[in-house]
Amino acid sequence: MASIQTASPEAQDKTPRTDRGRKTLRKLLDAAAKEFGEKGFHEASISGITRRAGTALGSFYTYFESKDAIFRALVNDMSAQVASHAREGVEGKSDPFEIEQAALRAFLEFASDNKEIYRIIDEAEFVDPKSFRQHYETTAARILDRLKNGEASGSFREGMEEPHAWALMGMNVFLGLRYAVWSDTTDAERIASVANTMLRSGIGKTDG
Amino acid sequence: MASIQTASPEAQDKTPRTDRGRKTLRKLLDAAAKEFGEKGFHEASISGITRRAGTALGSFYTYFESKDAIFRALVNDMSAQVASHAREGVEGKSDPFEIEQAALRAFLEFASDNKEIYRIIDEAEFVDPKSFRQHYETTAARILDRLKNGEASGSFREGMEEPHAWALMGMNVFLGLRYAVWSDTTDAERIASVANTMLRSGIGKTDG
Repeated sequence: MASIQTASPEAQDKTPRTDRGRKTLRKLLDAAAKEFGEKGFHEASISGITRRAGTALGSFYTYFESKDAIFRALVNDMSAQVASHAREGVEGKSDPFEIEQAALRAFLEFASDNKEIYRIIDEAEFVDPKSFRQHYETTAARILDRLKNGEASGSFREGMEEPHAWALMGMNVFLGLRYAVWSDTTDAERIASVANTMLRSGIGKTDG
Repeated sequence: MASIQTASPEAQDKTPRTDRGRKTLRKLLDAAAKEFGEKGFHEASISGITRRAGTALGSFYTYFESKDAIFRALVNDMSAQVASHAREGVEGKSDPFEIEQAALRAFLEFASDNKEIYRIIDEAEFVDPKSFRQHYETTAARILDRLKNGEASGSFREGMEEPHAWALMGMNVFLGLRYAVWSDTTDAERIASVANTMLRSGIGKTDG
């Protein structure tokens, strides 16, 4: 079994050092996503998580001290997964508008495959407000970096600021809610294209 | 006291017929906004609501059957308040872009004065999913009407569709979260102006 290691003084989860440990941790987090996603935080249980993961209860406590701790780890994990899917989605692209379109498409596909993500991150607003806020602040900061890059390369207008990043994040989040989570017939490509045209030239008639 | 009247077979709240009844109902809903906003649904109590409202417990049951019922009524009430503030904010304006800017400014001001609105509507995702969904679907439908009007009058591009409305709603919701709820120094006018420029001509360099 993996040895116990505390990643930071604040972290209540323990980072595994072996492949086997990492696999068990992954199984627990995936099972937690299903358990919290289906039942919500209050109805979810540690035994429900280990049953779904097919692991012993002892394994759970190797990595997490409590239901709160795995929930917090799950929010951070989902936030990181959103980021890594966006990164993969934009790989090889250099045009800033293409990058935004690919990032949104990757997010829509991820949300469609992981519909529980909204319920989990939204419930963090109540269960773990710090993680909730951190998820959106981190995501907005990442988007702002992309906007500044696009500005520097001459594709985006000068003056890209934090409000642009929050506006763009809001577009993406709500398109995901409507077309990836609430609808089974997601056409990620089309939705990402509509959003990209809005981003590129707005909705004014004289443009484009 | 107001007589009891059931608005619809589904409604669990009773519509008051007298001014005094309407005032009591208003006091209860405002008190419920504070109680649910501060404590969250599970910790909130009917006695906490009546204490804040300065009404007797009996008055509560004149209008609501349960904590669930007043929560549901509150979500619908807040949704209606968002709509009526937007309507007031755009009064007298005819330019479709000015209408959007005024609607966002009105929303930011409303959210700044009623910071609990996010917590309440977001908690509806768990406590009363039907009202949660209805709030966003109704709001998106209202925005789509405005977009179609702007298209008809020649200000907006042809082909305004539901995804445009959801994208615009997402922008507004996240700008409200960041600049009206999480920040005390809201400059609603500036934020609404930044968003309006994005909406008008996107963020592409060649525009405007």
